[in-house]
Amino acid sequence: MSQPKLYFEDFTPGRVFKSEPRPVPRDEIVEFAREFDPQPFHLDEEAARKTMFGGLAASGWHSCCIMMRLIADSFLLNASAMGSGGIDQVRWLVPIRPDDVVTLHSTVLETRASQSRPDRGFVKFTFELFNQAGVKVATMAAPLMLAKRNAGAAS
Amino acid sequence: MSQPKLYFEDFTPGRVFKSEPRPVPRDEIVEFAREFDPQPFHLDEEAARKTMFGGLAASGWHSCCIMMRLIADSFLLNASAMGSGGIDQVRWLVPIRPDDVVTLHSTVLETRASQSRPDRGFVKFTFELFNQAGVKVATMAAPLMLAKRNAGAAS
Repeated sequence: MSQPKLYFEDFTPGRVFKSEPRPVPRDEIVEFAREFDPQPFHLDEEAARKTMFGGLAASGWHSCCIMMRLIADSFLLNASAMGSGGIDQVRWLVPIRPDDVVTLHSTVLETRASQSRPDRGFVKFTFELFNQAGVKVATMAAPLMLAKRNAGAAS
Repeated sequence: MSQPKLYFEDFTPGRVFKSEPRPVPRDEIVEFAREFDPQPFHLDEEAARKTMFGGLAASGWHSCCIMMRLIADSFLLNASAMGSGGIDQVRWLVPIRPDDVVTLHSTVLETRASQSRPDRGFVKFTFELFNQAGVKVATMAAPLMLAKRNAGAAS
């Protein structure tokens, strides 16, 4: 693997990473639902029309997975990422519909050096996913662990 | 769609739904990661060995999606499910490894009838995912919205 460009120290509170737009085709919505969330409103237009969604809607978990992919592509694959212990909160605000095009804004909320491991720190992010109309469709809060610059020398 | 067997009223605090065991093959781990979370430790044994995971590990998002599928199969597809507003918390405790076999326990934590909509209520669950050794690998807390029995008559 090549050297990361971004380390713990580069994630300063307020810094925002914007993703490229990502289309969400109908087939992907249905394929995802068939594998992981086969509720009728994620699988079939006709069944979905009679539900509170009023039409086919992507699984909330699909939105999360798309957010993860946009996180990876917009900064994480260039960073000294060491995984995460979990997710603090997800809110699904508006359904993602077939052929929506979504964009992710990742904002650094706060950072904290690890007490026990001098080579790393934690970065809390707020993630906001928007559709092509600029409507916020989902939010997520999660901490990521990142190595410090020159962590090898420090530890 | 056939009539649901489980309504809001059936989700009493303390009730537990146990899933069937689900194997997580290596190919599924890599395929998921390639699509949604292409970090080296989810893609490639060799790269993963040098990281804090010490070997190939499933994406935490993959664990979440597997939990969703086990929720669907163990009770939600038989219930009057009306979706969810989000997730309160996820904790990834132990990596899922290739060929692990996981099982989900879904426990009803508390329930609340909707104030504004007399036809439905909210059920808060704690979800616990175990591997074949009985080790808890992930937990999740989330509310689900469910229709009440005879909701059509009540609303």
